[in-house]
Amino acid sequence: MFTAVRRFSTATRRFLSMDTPSIDIQEIRAKYWNKDEEFFLEENLPTTDPFKLFDIWFKQIANISDLSFEEINAVCVSTVGKDLRPSSRMVLLKSYTSDGFSFFTNYNSRKGQQIEENPNAAMLFHWPKTSRQIRIEGAIDKLDDDLAVKYWNSRPLPSRIGSKSSEQSETVPNRQFLENKKRELTELAEREGGQAITKPESWGGYILIPRYFEFWQGQSDRLHDRIVFERDEEVWTIKRLSP
Amino acid sequence: MFTAVRRFSTATRRFLSMDTPSIDIQEIRAKYWNKDEEFFLEENLPTTDPFKLFDIWFKQIANISDLSFEEINAVCVSTVGKDLRPSSRMVLLKSYTSDGFSFFTNYNSRKGQQIEENPNAAMLFHWPKTSRQIRIEGAIDKLDDDLAVKYWNSRPLPSRIGSKSSEQSETVPNRQFLENKKRELTELAEREGGQAITKPESWGGYILIPRYFEFWQGQSDRLHDRIVFERDEEVWTIKRLSP
Repeated sequence: MFTAVRRFSTATRRFLSMDTPSIDIQEIRAKYWNKDEEFFLEENLPTTDPFKLFDIWFKQIANISDLSFEEINAVCVSTVGKDLRPSSRMVLLKSYTSDGFSFFTNYNSRKGQQIEENPNAAMLFHWPKTSRQIRIEGAIDKLDDDLAVKYWNSRPLPSRIGSKSSEQSETVPNRQFLENKKRELTELAEREGGQAITKPESWGGYILIPRYFEFWQGQSDRLHDRIVFERDEEVWTIKRLSP
Repeated sequence: MFTAVRRFSTATRRFLSMDTPSIDIQEIRAKYWNKDEEFFLEENLPTTDPFKLFDIWFKQIANISDLSFEEINAVCVSTVGKDLRPSSRMVLLKSYTSDGFSFFTNYNSRKGQQIEENPNAAMLFHWPKTSRQIRIEGAIDKLDDDLAVKYWNSRPLPSRIGSKSSEQSETVPNRQFLENKKRELTELAEREGGQAITKPESWGGYILIPRYFEFWQGQSDRLHDRIVFERDEEVWTIKRLSP
């Protein structure tokens, strides 16, 4: 029933570095850095609301000044269609509320097609400097189009031109093809003003409505803290998982 | 047929920040930083072998000295079982070859159970300081157990004790439970030597055998470069996707 291309015999598996290895990645052992140098304990949570806990972590991380170069709102979104082949890519989180986690994209993109087939999705935030990750799982729904219009209109003109130049995930012959589209739209904006670069029909927002959160705090002894919030109807259960 | 918990009406969707927002994440706009300040063009690839291209990017990034604090071999692995609910977590890549991309874990973990149900998986490398991501999709297979034993024995004693203290993804009552296991194993190692901390039966390696690579180079005008390698049997096709 699955569509794996092929399954090799493990006996034939090689386990070597590339021809001229300059890095031995097996020797990379980061010293996990727990900013507060303390464990993350279920008996000591700042809140039992996982949305509020997300908010607390997110703001703590945003306020660490030497993280300024990380995109703290960059999040991996994983989706899967009926063919059971998952795909993952980074998106920029644009809102979080007690309903869910939102981002904008082109509904015709591959992720849009997969979400159409199957609304289940996973988000993964990873902030390596803090040895923290947050896993979120749930179902995705579309945002109202008026929110997409409002956000679209708030974007800088070059971002709007860039988005509108691109039929996301479509194959294009080369970069010049995209540059030509961009030039046409730039000329349009010069002639008629920036408001001429209207939101494409297929561009809009998604919201992931969580039924599962995991807050992961790396620890230097490898006994990482994993605190899970799982929803059954409207009730959240909190538990700890083995790392 | 899908198992989404529920689908809200978009009309009821709120789109607000948390109660006391201190960050307007819609205003976070990273200036994409292309180290070489040039486009990533299919007509100018350093190689047409996606495994070698991965190796080139990986080593370039490893050699940027101010990235020393990022875990360059940390990769998001996404898996999905028959229930069509994807899940994602970071793992540490421990090898890459012209066969595929390997990591070690506990086969009884949730990812192990999902891989057992469905070998299709996705990997996502994201190095925000370079505005680069690499997406890899394919099927996962187990590595030979002797490779797992060999790698296990190369790990520092505290890592082995940490791994062996943990029935990965199992619910545990509290952190103390894990600490107790760790103390028992530490005492065992003190009594009988580090070689007493043998590899658990269920701990081993996986290799993802790619059928799809995407090399993503962020560009400041939002016309990001997306170069895809797709495999049909043994033939790789190269194409560009709209960003």
